[in-house]
Amino acid sequence: MNIYEQALEKHKEWCGKIEVAAKAKVENKDDLSLAYTPGVAEPCRQIAADKEKVYDYTWKGNSVAVVSDGTAVLGLGDIGPEAAMPVMEGKALLFKEFAGIDAVPLCLDTKDPEEIIKIVKAIAPTFGGINLEDISAPRCVQIERTLIEELDIPVFHDDQHGTAIVVISALINALKLVEKNAEDIRVVVSGTGAAGSSIIKMLHKFGVRDILAFNVNGVLGSATPHNSSSFLDEELVAITNPNGFDGTLKDAFVGADVFVGVSAPKIVSKEMVASMAPKSIVFPMANPESEISYEDAIAAGAYIVGTGRSDHPNQINNVLAFPGLFKGALDSKATKITEDMKIAAARGIASLVAEKDLAQDYIIASSFDPRVAEVVAVAVADEAVKSGLIRGK
Amino acid sequence: MNIYEQALEKHKEWCGKIEVAAKAKVENKDDLSLAYTPGVAEPCRQIAADKEKVYDYTWKGNSVAVVSDGTAVLGLGDIGPEAAMPVMEGKALLFKEFAGIDAVPLCLDTKDPEEIIKIVKAIAPTFGGINLEDISAPRCVQIERTLIEELDIPVFHDDQHGTAIVVISALINALKLVEKNAEDIRVVVSGTGAAGSSIIKMLHKFGVRDILAFNVNGVLGSATPHNSSSFLDEELVAITNPNGFDGTLKDAFVGADVFVGVSAPKIVSKEMVASMAPKSIVFPMANPESEISYEDAIAAGAYIVGTGRSDHPNQINNVLAFPGLFKGALDSKATKITEDMKIAAARGIASLVAEKDLAQDYIIASSFDPRVAEVVAVAVADEAVKSGLIRGK
Repeated sequence: MNIYEQALEKHKEWCGKIEVAAKAKVENKDDLSLAYTPGVAEPCRQIAADKEKVYDYTWKGNSVAVVSDGTAVLGLGDIGPEAAMPVMEGKALLFKEFAGIDAVPLCLDTKDPEEIIKIVKAIAPTFGGINLEDISAPRCVQIERTLIEELDIPVFHDDQHGTAIVVISALINALKLVEKNAEDIRVVVSGTGAAGSSIIKMLHKFGVRDILAFNVNGVLGSATPHNSSSFLDEELVAITNPNGFDGTLKDAFVGADVFVGVSAPKIVSKEMVASMAPKSIVFPMANPESEISYEDAIAAGAYIVGTGRSDHPNQINNVLAFPGLFKGALDSKATKITEDMKIAAARGIASLVAEKDLAQDYIIASSFDPRVAEVVAVAVADEAVKSGLIRGK
Repeated sequence: MNIYEQALEKHKEWCGKIEVAAKAKVENKDDLSLAYTPGVAEPCRQIAADKEKVYDYTWKGNSVAVVSDGTAVLGLGDIGPEAAMPVMEGKALLFKEFAGIDAVPLCLDTKDPEEIIKIVKAIAPTFGGINLEDISAPRCVQIERTLIEELDIPVFHDDQHGTAIVVISALINALKLVEKNAEDIRVVVSGTGAAGSSIIKMLHKFGVRDILAFNVNGVLGSATPHNSSSFLDEELVAITNPNGFDGTLKDAFVGADVFVGVSAPKIVSKEMVASMAPKSIVFPMANPESEISYEDAIAAGAYIVGTGRSDHPNQINNVLAFPGLFKGALDSKATKITEDMKIAAARGIASLVAEKDLAQDYIIASSFDPRVAEVVAVAVADEAVKSGLIRGK
């Protein structure tokens, strides 16, 4: 059996990768009168008098809704809310296994951004945070921004920022190894959708000045105007292509220090990688097949290669980020997840590989390193407290 | 410490009476590639090709959303979605403990019936059933009806029908004991809200012909027209008061066989109970204080008394109904919960007390009788199959 047949068989066996479990026992009438009526009236009254107490007496402070409309699931596209369920359950499973967070999948039978926003706002009293997932771009950006502004609980679209955080942490360590500074490097990014746009913004925030961003229309910010450009593209133009570069992706590779790919399979050749600056860093992460294979990138002389795959070194996996990030946000009572908190998460992840252990094939910790979630959570919580964006402040 | 202080302390300790637990393990990269990417793509693809398969590969077939807007919580009224959370968590806990169902509380920050309907329809792909809870009348009726019509999963408002089902099951056994027939009795019902209206409809369905229904405006269906009457009241007029009775609640008690109270404390006197027909059946269930106390009803000569309280015999507790009802509906792939399925549930509950064991203080099984959920589930599933209202038919 291949991996897909095995996975199907396991999913049939599990029939749900998560379940709801009791924390309170209900074995007799006394139990019932404490956990349910009449006793339950008292926490209800307390919360009615002071909403903040919902964090003391319910699961809210440790729970996250994993919300999707099923429009951009894995590499499968718009497969609908039912078909998105296995992924959202998987996400909820990872929240629990990696950070002890109670996450609930919520797959929505609507694609209307305004309706999605309304629904998430309406369910917000139940949850401590909202993880948006697999919602197509650029709608996902609009939905996330509105919710961040209008809700007082953390809202985070993992497809945008999860990968971005881990790319930054991989880059932090890779730059140490190649002894280059963020300020001096040129980074070529292919893909300006959900993940790409967030990566570009975090690279900018992280201090990278020379970013060339490509999408199907070519490079952003060139003299040649694009046929179609979203509000997202326009935001990226402001922070990329400072020198008015106007060539192809192949041209952009010449002398580049870093390549980050979140776009399409097989668009990068060995020749292109070979044309990069010495000690080049190559992160081709397109799914399910990447811009260039790990083997080809290495063969072409890339110094450090990171991919999304678990069967190669340096896996850039967002499971390194989101569990600890939410744990830190929930534990610190953060009302928002800011860019600084994301950078703090990236630095936390990077810190798990000691400088003396850094190597071309070891720039980032394993997802199963048991320290990850806690280190990220502490880093994020510290930054949240520093920012002052916490409840009751 | 009294019960409320104890319950508060326990709620603080639990900090959530339920949690999300993993059914799949994620201990290494192989696990991750089966439960999450890349393996998860396969069940996604299968469901995208055939929606029905969401029941094979996800938790949907065993999950229920417990949805409330917090407008009619216990006897506390409109205390808002956050304050409703302890009750909805409690309900989810009971679903798990009594029927093994994975239920998720969803407290909504909106009171607009149209919006509530939209939200529940939108989240429906995630769940196998919808349990509406603590939504004020008559809005709850409108919301439930629309959802039943427009969704293809069972929708059930427990405040309406949960109590009604258990009242009917208590009545089935009480009538056996007093040797009266449903067709021949006169039943006085006080309260025509969520629970009262459903009780009246089920009594009618069960064959009771002479029902007198009272609310704050007096008896329904009298010659004297009411100042205000909801669409619900109008529906009840059609099936109550066949003889044009036009007196007070006190008048109605004279010669009545059964009293069912889901209204207000202390509105029934000993004198009124004493005026009932021989072998009278009295179910005063107002919360937190009932229409007449158990002791007073007994002292006044009631033959069988059932209340909502666990410290008296014959507790009429909806926990006898909803877990097994949903289990039966989910197991049988029912698309609706019909009146006949509710009556089947009532007969199932009643059947748990063998005829030879029936006594004035034992007309209904304990909520902790381990047979309850299974017996109810089987009765409901049989009826669902008989009705043909099941998926794929």
